[in-house]
Amino acid sequence: MGLQNLQVLLRETPTGLPDTAHFSCVTTPLPAVGEGQVLIRNIWLSLDPYMRGQISGRHLSGRVQPGELLLGETLGIVAQSNHSAFQPGDLVRTMGGWQRYCVKRADEISVLPLDVKHAPHMLSILGMPGLTAYAGLIWQAQPQPGDTVVVAAATGTVGSVIVQLAKQLGCRVVGIAGGAEKCHYAITELGADICLDRHQPDLADALVDACPKGINIYFDLVGGPILELASKQLAIGARVILCGLISDYNRVDNTPPVGPSPVYWILARATVYGLVVYDYEQRREEFVQACLPLVNSGKLKIKEHIVYGLANAAAGFIDLLNGNSFGKVLVKIE
Amino acid sequence: MGLQNLQVLLRETPTGLPDTAHFSCVTTPLPAVGEGQVLIRNIWLSLDPYMRGQISGRHLSGRVQPGELLLGETLGIVAQSNHSAFQPGDLVRTMGGWQRYCVKRADEISVLPLDVKHAPHMLSILGMPGLTAYAGLIWQAQPQPGDTVVVAAATGTVGSVIVQLAKQLGCRVVGIAGGAEKCHYAITELGADICLDRHQPDLADALVDACPKGINIYFDLVGGPILELASKQLAIGARVILCGLISDYNRVDNTPPVGPSPVYWILARATVYGLVVYDYEQRREEFVQACLPLVNSGKLKIKEHIVYGLANAAAGFIDLLNGNSFGKVLVKIE
Repeated sequence: MGLQNLQVLLRETPTGLPDTAHFSCVTTPLPAVGEGQVLIRNIWLSLDPYMRGQISGRHLSGRVQPGELLLGETLGIVAQSNHSAFQPGDLVRTMGGWQRYCVKRADEISVLPLDVKHAPHMLSILGMPGLTAYAGLIWQAQPQPGDTVVVAAATGTVGSVIVQLAKQLGCRVVGIAGGAEKCHYAITELGADICLDRHQPDLADALVDACPKGINIYFDLVGGPILELASKQLAIGARVILCGLISDYNRVDNTPPVGPSPVYWILARATVYGLVVYDYEQRREEFVQACLPLVNSGKLKIKEHIVYGLANAAAGFIDLLNGNSFGKVLVKIE
Repeated sequence: MGLQNLQVLLRETPTGLPDTAHFSCVTTPLPAVGEGQVLIRNIWLSLDPYMRGQISGRHLSGRVQPGELLLGETLGIVAQSNHSAFQPGDLVRTMGGWQRYCVKRADEISVLPLDVKHAPHMLSILGMPGLTAYAGLIWQAQPQPGDTVVVAAATGTVGSVIVQLAKQLGCRVVGIAGGAEKCHYAITELGADICLDRHQPDLADALVDACPKGINIYFDLVGGPILELASKQLAIGARVILCGLISDYNRVDNTPPVGPSPVYWILARATVYGLVVYDYEQRREEFVQACLPLVNSGKLKIKEHIVYGLANAAAGFIDLLNGNSFGKVLVKIE
């Protein structure tokens, strides 16, 4: 075919926060398309915090070693198909990785629902981040009207969905986000009742003031000191969803960080759920059917932060880890 | 009546492990019995680890200040009654405290079920410790046959009940206890499959070896390093019951100890329950009805460690905190 692939590889395992020198963008031969396989031209790549865990070997979805391709979910178009279920031109979702072309088996590919108006939503509110928010909030925490729901990283992809879903269920939502612009967005666009700035020096007191009846649901995407603060403010019968540890992703050693004292959870008679979104793959359709009408009617929305070109993917990823990007980070693969 | 009361008071709030000088045993006037009230001659006093929290002001059941009476559950005999529901001679359970006589309102007193063969069981396997074990294991953790259940302080009052109930439900039970004698007892008398000595230097490796398929249920009565070890060995879908923090009761400052990293609970998709036994008071009858036949038939048993006389109660309590007593610690009030 004369075409070549473009890939982003891990050059070196970072210690602490990565920089662009830890990644390399290289031209490679197009992979061969075997029997029953499909060649996909990736168009959109999702960048997500969990990828930091993969390049340290700390994430259960897989490890990326130096010299290997970065992993990630993609939307693409079928370029060549050796399987009867797929035709060239089909728009599909797969774990295509940080590259222009990938080759997949049929069972690794999903065709996009026809009624999705904006395809990249399948990587954000209607994709894995949306499913994460939905599974933790709806299926695990089971919010009741009037519950106080607290979520940090409230304007991130998962957090945005949590805020909006909780508001639609009649909850009082207290967000925590990094900086005035994000806090303003959480309130005016997502509907949060209050949004605290995670950098404000009186964050602990502000969280107490914001939750006079305590916290009924704390959805944890960050770990660290904010998990500790929230655990101290739980109401009796609270639910805590443990889902992500952004604060921990760049740590330099291999000792996992400590957690809050169990005494807070005992006093609150809390129920604490560990959430791994992969466990809910078989309920993805149920989630999409529940949320697609909300997305199409504009009741569930997501801000997008688009990075153009694989050559800029590493910088976009570092911005994501730093909190410098705002919205769902997507790479438009050229 | 000419009678006098005998009481154990807190002399001084201890820092770290208490000693007997922190307590004083004093003779005081008999309390007046008001209208609708009942005078009870206490016979058995239950000593329990949670009392350490009360004298530091860290327990939700109440704080004991210097100069005040120590709190605790008692069995006694009605000596004088100004309420029609109670007659002198009735055997009753109440929160009588560390004293020979107490005065209570009718709603603070329970008459013992007639079919209890051994009255002090109402302070142990059929009382609050038994209810704690039952609520956490049966109602929260919901064991399935074949589950691996781990419990530390396995020969303590709550732990003994957990081991025996879990075995009767077809679970594999791994106990942790302090010293060879307690470990032997956990296996030969309570039915644990394995019991590890918490002092053994290879405890971490031994726990891994003892749970080749991981831990399905960890019932935490101790907190600290053993909670951390167990959290690392959880099987997918594990349940963790957070109930006590013996390892923490004697700490010298007011900063609660840290907990295990949330990452272990995420990886295991664990459900973690904070347990406060008072929440299950309204289900006490259901628990007693389930366990009384097991107790009366000898299938559920408890070793008792009896301390004679209120003058020796403080020493008995310190032995309990040190792990030097073995079995349910009861004070026989003379």
